Amino acid sequence: MNQPGSGHSGYFDAAAGLPLHPVAAEAMQAAWQDGWADPSRLTGAGRRSAVLLDAARQAAAAELGVRPDELTFLPSGVHALQQAVLGSLAGRRRAGAVLVHSAVEHSAVFAAADWHHQRGGEALVAGVDPTARVDLAEFVELARRPGVATAVLQAANHEVGTRQPVAEAAGALAEFGVPLVVDAGHELVYGQPPAAAPIFTADARLWGGPAGVGLLVTRQGSRWRAPFPVDEAEAGRSAGAPNVPAIVAAVASLRATRADRAAEGRRLAGLIERIRDQVPRTVSDAVVLGPDDPAARLPHLVTFSCLYLDGEALLTELDRRGFAVSSGSSCTADTLTPSHVLVAMGALTSGNVRISLHPGVGQADVERFLAVLPDAVAAVRAQAPGSPAAGSAAPPRPAAPSRPTADQGPVLDSRGRRCPLPVLDLARALPGIEVGAELTVLADDPAAASDLAAWCRMRGQQLVDQAGLDSGGTAYRVRRLR
Amino acid sequence: MNQPGSGHSGYFDAAAGLPLHPVAAEAMQAAWQDGWADPSRLTGAGRRSAVLLDAARQAAAAELGVRPDELTFLPSGVHALQQAVLGSLAGRRRAGAVLVHSAVEHSAVFAAADWHHQRGGEALVAGVDPTARVDLAEFVELARRPGVATAVLQAANHEVGTRQPVAEAAGALAEFGVPLVVDAGHELVYGQPPAAAPIFTADARLWGGPAGVGLLVTRQGSRWRAPFPVDEAEAGRSAGAPNVPAIVAAVASLRATRADRAAEGRRLAGLIERIRDQVPRTVSDAVVLGPDDPAARLPHLVTFSCLYLDGEALLTELDRRGFAVSSGSSCTADTLTPSHVLVAMGALTSGNVRISLHPGVGQADVERFLAVLPDAVAAVRAQAPGSPAAGSAAPPRPAAPSRPTADQGPVLDSRGRRCPLPVLDLARALPGIEVGAELTVLADDPAAASDLAAWCRMRGQQLVDQAGLDSGGTAYRVRRLR
Repeated sequence: MNQPGSGHSGYFDAAAGLPLHPVAAEAMQAAWQDGWADPSRLTGAGRRSAVLLDAARQAAAAELGVRPDELTFLPSGVHALQQAVLGSLAGRRRAGAVLVHSAVEHSAVFAAADWHHQRGGEALVAGVDPTARVDLAEFVELARRPGVATAVLQAANHEVGTRQPVAEAAGALAEFGVPLVVDAGHELVYGQPPAAAPIFTADARLWGGPAGVGLLVTRQGSRWRAPFPVDEAEAGRSAGAPNVPAIVAAVASLRATRADRAAEGRRLAGLIERIRDQVPRTVSDAVVLGPDDPAARLPHLVTFSCLYLDGEALLTELDRRGFAVSSGSSCTADTLTPSHVLVAMGALTSGNVRISLHPGVGQADVERFLAVLPDAVAAVRAQAPGSPAAGSAAPPRPAAPSRPTADQGPVLDSRGRRCPLPVLDLARALPGIEVGAELTVLADDPAAASDLAAWCRMRGQQLVDQAGLDSGGTAYRVRRLR
Repeated sequence: MNQPGSGHSGYFDAAAGLPLHPVAAEAMQAAWQDGWADPSRLTGAGRRSAVLLDAARQAAAAELGVRPDELTFLPSGVHALQQAVLGSLAGRRRAGAVLVHSAVEHSAVFAAADWHHQRGGEALVAGVDPTARVDLAEFVELARRPGVATAVLQAANHEVGTRQPVAEAAGALAEFGVPLVVDAGHELVYGQPPAAAPIFTADARLWGGPAGVGLLVTRQGSRWRAPFPVDEAEAGRSAGAPNVPAIVAAVASLRATRADRAAEGRRLAGLIERIRDQVPRTVSDAVVLGPDDPAARLPHLVTFSCLYLDGEALLTELDRRGFAVSSGSSCTADTLTPSHVLVAMGALTSGNVRISLHPGVGQADVERFLAVLPDAVAAVRAQAPGSPAAGSAAPPRPAAPSRPTADQGPVLDSRGRRCPLPVLDLARALPGIEVGAELTVLADDPAAASDLAAWCRMRGQQLVDQAGLDSGGTAYRVRRLR
């Protein structure tokens, strides 16, 4: 393989990590010869490692527009992001113990915030609009509150690609001395490093670097303090001997990827536009998420939601047909909570598919995908019991007995039914009542709360209210408006 | 390279990490093809990664005598050790916040203990005998105190090779319900995993695995709780996608290394005995550290101290002659504190050399080393100003003016002189006073405290007392006994 990602033309999940970039593979091979030793050792082998590490650090720093001594290599992007947040909080302890972040950050930020909370800290969360863009005014207002030590904002959202106003946020926060930590992650592949951020992080797996390398930039004067035990590694900012061969490979692929980033970004943006344009035309009841303006989102990523289907079932169906995608769907037994990003946007969480492209994907691959998709969606919908698409061959299974009451109209008991079935039940039952009348859906799937609300918004119907039930689950009252 | 460590026959620093084992290189190469994806993904690539990871976990668990679900892969041996300690403390918070460990643990344990202390916890330290073996009675007595949550003991010391009584300690502690965390590190290469320890750790770099892999075993019922933020990786015990290719390689080299461990352990023990036997014969004023009994120490590691020389200068001299060794010496500007292991043993800290062998080192390499060593030592001693070995060509520089006082005899002002010079000054001056008389050495090098005491023990002289000086440094009063 000489082209990045060649042999992976059906892999549409770049945002979950890429196969090793050819230059990374080559660099790693060489670095295992000369860079296997601990670079802090005074032996010849140690010095050769140190030379490789220094060179990699300088090259990466130049690429990121920072000084070499501002760059720390950590064991993963998640490690880098968590330690960026917690280290900024530790370094600013005197200012207070409050962390501000958006509602759509990477789960590593939520994990760090939980950890901080368990130790007496606090987190304030700024909301987002339906495209997942943070409410900048709210973000700045929260960050200005007394006791705020630091604030975190992603450069672009990892699930729907929405770019966040990090330069504006960093500028506003600088006025009252609160530092901004930026999860630069996905934006760094084809975009620019966040020049205004005092602290930012990246994950080498997103540009074809090996696992085992996260980048943490702590600019001079940023008051970052290692939140976990360290040793002498990485100037006292990390623990354990640095993984020199992996770092060398990660930096080689960063440079190679970013050398092509303008042309490759344009090419991938064209493919993404094609998907955004085609999916709503060829797949019924599908909506594309994120902002319409291409400049407001990542060039290589798109997410859409299909009503009346389980995203993970679609993921499996597409995988069977040779395409790897991702889903924020929550319809499996092991992830009971729906994607916090989709919930915060008010989007449907159950039939969600994320596509993220890379240099190994061409126009023909995308056309192949678009040709396969409608059929795959139809196949999954046909499997779901009670699906409208199932037709007469698989008659919809009626919901559990409904019991109309005098004051609130018919009741549909969807308890015990997993997503997307509660939404399906509502979609089937609502046309049966008069415009202006109400229907109550009882459901206990955790995704129902966001999905019933999202469906009503998408379909122009009204979710009047919802109330917990003594017998378990929630009652959702829906008024038919059209 | 097909033999482990071939091409590294002058590398005598195995305990600092080995070059990649040939089977690790091969396994990693293959795993980068099939194991690059995040194993938690439901795509084909994710499933192939998960299969590789599961197979590696099962193979490693079988090798270590544990269940696969008791084994967690972390980013380094240091990460594993720190999280073993802090996770055991977190899981046993109800029992108290006191940690017990020996005085000669790896610096990662001290870093974890410091971190714990900064957060209100406490650490009690058990001393060791002059061979570095922990005082088991004291260790057990400390662990029995109220509020002790957990205790840590290494299987074998990383600087001098002394085996610790981990089975006895684990058994004694189990009687009153305090778990033992064992740093199995160096012992795992040619020895046995600590069967009695509820929690233990290892570092793949010690057996030719790649950087980026530490092993943490938390046996069922051991009440370990992740001390830092985690995600779903490694059953919620780690953060960030696991580094599957590195893990596969680490496990392949663990099995390959341990398949030969009996024969290889015997072979290396023979080479080490040869070094232990020869060094005191061919190098003047050299002492071998650690227990005499070969069963009481690691087969592949030996440390000796040479009086009147700077260990790091000898390290550099040996490196120039083609041999890589390690030094616990403290005579460089960037490590101002002497090795805590050597200090705890009461050994000389300044002229220390650690040799640790591996499968790529043969008898001929050791003989070559032994032939070179006396000359290298003489060359370094000749460079040191004031060295007895320097002879008339480089006359000893007199110490700063000494001023005899009525009550305490002559005073030698060695302040401002770095190790090994204060010891040299004492060695030169003591023969000039009468047997039974006293000499006072003033010194401000941090290593002087342990080194002057160690020298007196080695030479059968008496360190009467020591006292801080208002003008800086310390006054050491020495009585000539012979």
